[in-house]
This record gives sequence, structure tokens and C-alpha cells, in this order.
Amino acid sequence: MRVLVTGASGFVGRHALAALAARGYEVHAVARNPLPGFTNYPVDLLDEAQRRALVARVAPSHLLHLAWDAEPGKYWTSASNLAWVAASLDLARSFYEVGGRRFVVSGTCAEYTWGADRFDEATTPCRPATLYGAAKDGTRRILAAYADSVGLSFAWGRLFYLYGPGERRGRLVSDAAHALLTGAAFPTSPGHQARDFLHVVDVASALAALLDSPVTGAVNIGSGMAVPVRTLLDGLAARTGRPDLLHYGARPLSPSEPAVIEAATTRLREEVGFRPRFTLDAGLDDTLAWWRGQVSAGQ
Amino acid sequence: MRVLVTGASGFVGRHALAALAARGYEVHAVARNPLPGFTNYPVDLLDEAQRRALVARVAPSHLLHLAWDAEPGKYWTSASNLAWVAASLDLARSFYEVGGRRFVVSGTCAEYTWGADRFDEATTPCRPATLYGAAKDGTRRILAAYADSVGLSFAWGRLFYLYGPGERRGRLVSDAAHALLTGAAFPTSPGHQARDFLHVVDVASALAALLDSPVTGAVNIGSGMAVPVRTLLDGLAARTGRPDLLHYGARPLSPSEPAVIEAATTRLREEVGFRPRFTLDAGLDDTLAWWRGQVSAGQ
Repeated sequence: MRVLVTGASGFVGRHALAALAARGYEVHAVARNPLPGFTNYPVDLLDEAQRRALVARVAPSHLLHLAWDAEPGKYWTSASNLAWVAASLDLARSFYEVGGRRFVVSGTCAEYTWGADRFDEATTPCRPATLYGAAKDGTRRILAAYADSVGLSFAWGRLFYLYGPGERRGRLVSDAAHALLTGAAFPTSPGHQARDFLHVVDVASALAALLDSPVTGAVNIGSGMAVPVRTLLDGLAARTGRPDLLHYGARPLSPSEPAVIEAATTRLREEVGFRPRFTLDAGLDDTLAWWRGQVSAGQ
Repeated sequence: MRVLVTGASGFVGRHALAALAARGYEVHAVARNPLPGFTNYPVDLLDEAQRRALVARVAPSHLLHLAWDAEPGKYWTSASNLAWVAASLDLARSFYEVGGRRFVVSGTCAEYTWGADRFDEATTPCRPATLYGAAKDGTRRILAAYADSVGLSFAWGRLFYLYGPGERRGRLVSDAAHALLTGAAFPTSPGHQARDFLHVVDVASALAALLDSPVTGAVNIGSGMAVPVRTLLDGLAARTGRPDLLHYGARPLSPSEPAVIEAATTRLREEVGFRPRFTLDAGLDDTLAWWRGQVSAGQ
């Protein structure tokens, strides 16, 4: 079994490589940066010729497609979402045409219509509020029909909120951890909104388990239990001894942000058979340990 | 007002050019074949460089995007649907980036979930049964979000069943008209299924009216009244004097074909302000007149 992993040097990607290798896959990675220990191709996936040549060269049986524009603050509305739709559709087609059998893509809870508290793959409608959400949602719909028409096995791992070692700055947990460890004030929202957070190692393991399963269609990848953002930030602050740095309410919560975003995880637990390894407490310990290393290295 | 029309030598496209010219647009066409009387660019729209260069050169204020794979018998499942999604998204982006303001695309009733008899833009769900339907549906969803995010005016003309002069062979009305005029047997389904047929000149006029309006989102383009296929075929046979050539029931109707497909046309009539010109009777006369010309010319 030979798997090609796109977005392999991203937050989830780096952890997914190890999870796939542990399951016995021959792992081939696509990433901008070198990935020690893995065969890596520094290919521009938005370039049609490069993309097709790569797929033909690797001829993978499995493909885990994680690459997308994820630039903090910009990806929600970036026109690059259109280019990633196009690249993802063509990737699936090239993959199938060289004999690929199992195609798994990372989606997002932002595909769902905000409104429900708990999002279920079978019953919650998808009518996304953002270009990013719509691009992912549209890609999934089209890929599902394509896979169905040619007989390709296709699943879509719908990611909720992630945290953990290696997260880039510009996101909630990474910025909070950095501020708390460097003594900087952290102005934030009132923090009452509840979100479904899953440690990135568990997210990557869940995607590997999904790839390794015969489950098709959309599968939520979350903890199954939303926690108030305040609980998570308080947990970080308690561990660093500086709760005074958290300025709750110093920033407004956007009115478009729902009160609760929680994944229904029946498919993930019962069909894929996945159980998370990290509790939130263990995950916050792990995350801060990594950030301590970064901060003392001057990052 | 300068409009670029893709798919301009197609069944709808040729009629749309005249309708747009009549509304005062400076018409630029993209088509494989020459179009006497119109400025035409024989560009391959699936080629990114050609497509972008064309949009930059014409710099249209309006775009009517009709091009797609429409090869009879194949387009429902062709992988080229994926390439047309990609080309359509990039076309919208290029168009917006050169200053384009109004973007209208042709969709299909196959975007709807079969099940209802009458399809309404606001209330009938879209969960298409085919790759073609899913590709159009996904494209619409993504383009609507893109248009929303950048402030582009965007509408989607959802076509139902078309007939009229210039239809390629391999489709119901064209094949029936040809058979009836050449004395060939025409084996067909029992013909009880009702479909919403609109004369192609009316379809093209409706799209021109939609482009010329400020209406956004999906708009059904149909007659608003489904008729049994048998009524339409009997109408052709009565006009040619050879009802004996119609062999109803000689072919099965696919079990996936719904009993009724009818467009709700409130948006088209009240918001766009469009009224069809052809009754079914006048439309069948007109269609047969054209086919008589073709047949005597040996086509």
C-alpha cells in the first residue's frame, strides 16, 4: 500500500506521515519543506503539469489530500480557494487514472450551516457561510459524485478545531500559548463560545484510521465534546501561572460565530473505530511543553 | 456593455448572441466554429493560458458562460465535468479581476433532488443523482460564495428541457424530428413522463433577460408547465403525418427517471420579467420547419 500525502509539512500533515507509516504504508509526501525520514516531492500542486507528473511517478494506491490554503486571517475569503478546488478535482482524476483506489480529503466543520449545536454528517445541512467553507463543501459534493461514477473509494474527514505542537502563529491556541509563555498580554473574546477541540496527533491518527478503513462519505473528526474556549485558555494559563495575561472581552466575538460547534462522532468511533489518545488536560500539557521548547529556542 | 459569451456555437449559444445584440450589448463570442456576424475567438476554454488571455483581451463587463461538455450520452458521467468546474471557477475569477461586474452561468434541473414534481429555487433541495448534476451544483455553490465575497453580481440560469432549431442529433426531439421526416421508425419509452420543455429561442432570450437584470442566485428557466413526452412526440407525428413511426414502449424508461420534472417560474416571470414567445404548438411548427430544411439538404 503506497500512500501519497499532500500538505505533508502542514500542521496535520507532519503528524499524519508518522501515523500512516505506523500502519504499514509506504509514505510519499508532497511538501514545500524537506521532511526528514520521508520521501518528499517539493511539487507545486496548483501547477497542473507538476501535479500530474507527480501522481504518475508515485502511482499511489491511496491518497490523503490535506493541502489547501490555510493562511491565518486570509483563507476564509481568499480567491485561492477556487484554485484549490480545481487542483483537488484534477488530483482525484489523475489518481484514479493511474490506478488509485482510496482517496481521502480533509474537510472542515465550516461546511455545515451554523445554527445547530451539534453537527451530524447525515442530518445537519451544509450551507456554508464562507468562501472557504463553500469551496470545501462544493469539492466534496463533486468528488463524491465522481468517485461514485468511476468506483473510487472516497471519504472526507471533516476537521473541527485543532490544537497541539507545531501549530503556526496567528491561531487561537498557538498565539495564547506563546503570549502566556513570553509574558505578553492576550486580549481575547469573552470566551464563552464552546468549540470541539482535538489534539493534532489525534486528528492525524483519525485521518490515518479513516484512510485505512472502507468507510465512505463525510466523517466528522472531533472529540465529540465542545468545551468553552475559556476553559481551554484557563487551562493554559493555570499551567503557566499567568492567568492575569488573559484579557477576556478585550476583543468582541464576531456575531457570526455560533455559541457551540460540536462534532457528532458516532461515525468516527463506531464505523472507523477510532478513539482519541489525548484528554484535553494531557493535550494542553503536551502543547505547552512544545511551546516552551520553541520559546527557549527564541521562536 | 460588453458581453463575452462562452459556448456560443452551441444549441443555446447561437440564439443567445442575437438576443444579447438586440439588447444593445457589444457581443464577443467564444466558439470552436466561426459565427458569421459576431466577433469570435476560437479559444480552448479548458486551457488556462488561453482562457485567461482571452478574458484579459476582451475585458468584458458581462459574461454569459454556457460552455460545458454536452456530448449526448456521455456528459452525465464524463470526467470532463471536473475540468469544466475548474475552468468555470477560474473564468469567474479572471473576469472579476479584469473588472467584470455581472456573471451569469447556465445550470441544469439535474441539480435538483429528484422526488418533487415541481422544482422551486428556494425550497427544493439540490442533491443531484449524477456527476454532471453534481458538478453544476458544486460550481454554483462555490461561485455564489466567491461572488458574495468579492461583490460580483452573479446569477445562475437553471435550464430544464430544450428543443428547437439547431439541436444536435442524439437527443429526444432532434432524433424524433429526423426520424419522422425521413420515414424511420422511432422506438421510444412509453412517454408518460412529463417534462418542462421550452423552445431554445425562449431559453436564450430568458438568459439574455437574466443577464440584463440585477437578479442574483438560481433562476429556473422553463415554461412552468410540464407536458407528457407523448404529447410532444404526438405533436411532431401529427405534423408529419406518420404517427405509425412512433413505437412507444419499445425502449424502457430508466427507473431513475422521475414522472414529472417541472420548473417553478415565479422568479423568471416576476423578478426577471420574462415571458416565453413560443407556445408548444408554434415551437413544434418552427422546429419541424428547420428539420425539413436540414433533411432536404441531406443532413
